[in-house]
Amino acid sequence: MLTHINEKGYAKMVDISNKDETTRIAVATATITMSRDALDKIKNGQIKKGEVISVAQVAGIMGAKNTSLNIPMCHQINLVGCDLEFEIIEQSSSIKIYSTCKSHGKTGVEMEALNACTIAALTIYDMCKAVDKKMIISNIHLVEKTGGKSGDFKF
Amino acid sequence: MLTHINEKGYAKMVDISNKDETTRIAVATATITMSRDALDKIKNGQIKKGEVISVAQVAGIMGAKNTSLNIPMCHQINLVGCDLEFEIIEQSSSIKIYSTCKSHGKTGVEMEALNACTIAALTIYDMCKAVDKKMIISNIHLVEKTGGKSGDFKF
Amino acid sequence: MLTHINEKGYAKMVDISNKDETTRIAVATATITMSRDALDKIKNGQIKKGEVISVAQVAGIMGAKNTSLNIPMCHQINLVGCDLEFEIIEQSSSIKIYSTCKSHGKTGVEMEALNACTIAALTIYDMCKAVDKKMIISNIHLVEKTGGKSGDFKF
Amino acid sequence: MLTHINEKGYAKMVDISNKDETTRIAVATATITMSRDALDKIKNGQIKKGEVISVAQVAGIMGAKNTSLNIPMCHQINLVGCDLEFEIIEQSSSIKIYSTCKSHGKTGVEMEALNACTIAALTIYDMCKAVDKKMIISNIHLVEKTGGKSGDFKF
Amino acid sequence: MLTHINEKGYAKMVDISNKDETTRIAVATATITMSRDALDKIKNGQIKKGEVISVAQVAGIMGAKNTSLNIPMCHQINLVGCDLEFEIIEQSSSIKIYSTCKSHGKTGVEMEALNACTIAALTIYDMCKAVDKKMIISNIHLVEKTGGKSGDFKF
Amino acid sequence: MLTHINEKGYAKMVDISNKDETTRIAVATATITMSRDALDKIKNGQIKKGEVISVAQVAGIMGAKNTSLNIPMCHQINLVGCDLEFEIIEQSSSIKIYSTCKSHGKTGVEMEALNACTIAALTIYDMCKAVDKKMIISNIHLVEKTGGKSGDFKF
Repeated sequence: MLTHINEKGYAKMVDISNKDETTRIAVATATITMSRDALDKIKNGQIKKGEVISVAQVAGIMGAKNTSLNIPMCHQINLVGCDLEFEIIEQSSSIKIYSTCKSHGKTGVEMEALNACTIAALTIYDMCKAVDKKMIISNIHLVEKTGGKSGDFKF
Repeated sequence: MLTHINEKGYAKMVDISNKDETTRIAVATATITMSRDALDKIKNGQIKKGEVISVAQVAGIMGAKNTSLNIPMCHQINLVGCDLEFEIIEQSSSIKIYSTCKSHGKTGVEMEALNACTIAALTIYDMCKAVDKKMIISNIHLVEKTGGKSGDFKF
Repeated sequence: MLTHINEKGYAKMVDISNKDETTRIAVATATITMSRDALDKIKNGQIKKGEVISVAQVAGIMGAKNTSLNIPMCHQINLVGCDLEFEIIEQSSSIKIYSTCKSHGKTGVEMEALNACTIAALTIYDMCKAVDKKMIISNIHLVEKTGGKSGDFKF
Repeated sequence: MLTHINEKGYAKMVDISNKDETTRIAVATATITMSRDALDKIKNGQIKKGEVISVAQVAGIMGAKNTSLNIPMCHQINLVGCDLEFEIIEQSSSIKIYSTCKSHGKTGVEMEALNACTIAALTIYDMCKAVDKKMIISNIHLVEKTGGKSGDFKF
Repeated sequence: MLTHINEKGYAKMVDISNKDETTRIAVATATITMSRDALDKIKNGQIKKGEVISVAQVAGIMGAKNTSLNIPMCHQINLVGCDLEFEIIEQSSSIKIYSTCKSHGKTGVEMEALNACTIAALTIYDMCKAVDKKMIISNIHLVEKTGGKSGDFKF
Repeated sequence: MLTHINEKGYAKMVDISNKDETTRIAVATATITMSRDALDKIKNGQIKKGEVISVAQVAGIMGAKNTSLNIPMCHQINLVGCDLEFEIIEQSSSIKIYSTCKSHGKTGVEMEALNACTIAALTIYDMCKAVDKKMIISNIHLVEKTGGKSGDFKF
């Protein structure tokens, strides 16, 4: 059964009132691949002030907080921590983004982590699209999660 | 030059006051790949009421409208139309999403289209994650755009 | 045909790019009926500072501006004016709310006017619910609209 | 006394810090009455894909989550569950909407439930207004609530 | 060390998972100074209905609730109470605003209190700017806070 | 007359439908004063990555876009450009912030500029409050505006 579907076939916000309050951590990842030229411009920026990655970091953290406003069936969650990491991969001319979200509550923060790294990637796209319109965002997935009834998960 | 970076090296919202008001259309795509089991559950839903795709469609349209709230340097744009399309690809056990956004104004709607299909994909993820935590969202890119100074673009 | 449904049966944001830019005005109404006691408390407030109605007025105007964030298929509209009026009807122990919204654009502001008076009524409910939980909000409808292709309308 | 008014006569967010944390459930209702033609178009949609009601369901759930952004003196509440139900009433050519909200906290979720069914009704209005501009939303009220100091309530 | 900066030099949302849940109260202040004429218009309003201050009060409370949407690294906090106070200071032709926010949680509400009185001041500015464009908002600071590891604070 | 007050004494969103569409620019400023220690920590950050100022810049730009969501009677405005500048003033151990907003429309962008520099200052406060709780934000005012019926203004 898809737990988000009610008995009439419509979507609902799942009742989590009987789930335990535990510490929950989720890590997610996204990758944006771009032209060598665009990556160089970001890196030059990074050596100086890293503005593109800096803005993407802020966007990712704010995105994590806005998750329940964007994803219709997501519960509202007050995060107790959020951080991102950006790894430049020269070989594939890409940036791999990792996001980590943490909460203490009745449901997991997978969607917050996924939203954070995705919005960070879209922000990089936005700031570089004048240079390269062919960028591709890919490989968005959950990396791991801990806490909660369904147990720990590693991709 | 990255046009979003000001002379001090910080990000700015680009001044578009001298750009022409034209009709602008952008099409973007995203793909979510999942287990055969998860896809079957969505398809069964779809035959009956298509709830997962229906919710993803609503989330995508609302996401398009919220783009400038999520992507820091995006201009505020009043869309004059937005639609999505979902194509089930049996062979790869995936759903390919296309989003089309339209506006009449001084700047393009690429980010709105990209945000729409991405949030639709994340919504599918959210509603199916109880069944499959290994889903991957990939191949997010601009498909085409028309209107604006930089001319038409096809991926 | 319901114009918000696309050819696959899913909802879309209607393409209004071919509609004319005209001045558009919409007036809507809502009524909240309550106990004599609750109405007296509001009126006493009104004689002094009218706080309940004053907060409802602010909520209605902010609600008008937030319409496209709340109603999924609504276009984003920049209003050029918004006001509300509250009429206390002693006989039925109720408050009748009128809201007027105005814009210059390609689509009407009916939903903005309806949202404004409805949120104003819900705000009155919220501020009086400690005194009366049986309040009823009713008779929400469009009163009139002018401008746009479908012509003027009077209820 | 209206509890939302401070000693100077202005509105405040009531201090609930001394209230108990309990499970709180609220059910609210709203009814939208329309032309036979509009109802038929929704029902035909429903037999196929139920899009109007499906979008209204999503709007209602997102509306429940946005309540404190729309109603000025409402506390922020993290819901642990939310669902809606739509009952087509042929005799009166109307749709009766029920919304149920659930939380665990220091204050009730009446406004969340009222907001959910009201926004669902406004969404139906929005999607059908091309067919019928004379629709009326009425009979919005709290149906029942459980939990909290003031005890259980049935309308 | 600035606790909001991660080891790579980018901003993060600080991990507060190990902090204690306590009752936290913060009081902040802001002052807006204006022409004698503008202050008289507000006071006349106040004698009658106090609309400018009444709207500023609502804006301040809604601003407190929106703090984490506006301040990037702020944690999401569900307030359990919020109120403002406006003191007219004839001698300096100014209005001094005090805001008090209260929560029960792992982190303080200083930013909520600061945001509340600041947005209240900006709202007064907005409503009076047709009369006086030279108004100055100043002296925004934390007045006191209680609760939390760093102990009580008085300015 | 305060133009935001209607004939019944309540606040309204002023009707601007008869005003001309012109290019409008507003510049505003805010100053945050802090301990020598806090300023040094920001400056050290700035030499390396300038994170505090970088986050404040992003917050200011997003704040400019959110102005009508925070200031109740503000019209919704689609900005065509926004930038901020931060000047470190050693002598007074403070940072002076300038924000510039630009639009083409029927009403000015003073509130957007004021909101941008104020939220930037609050963001600096948030990120440094672990080091210094006695920071003061002051001297927030409009610096200049051009465009619109009331003519150019210089503070």
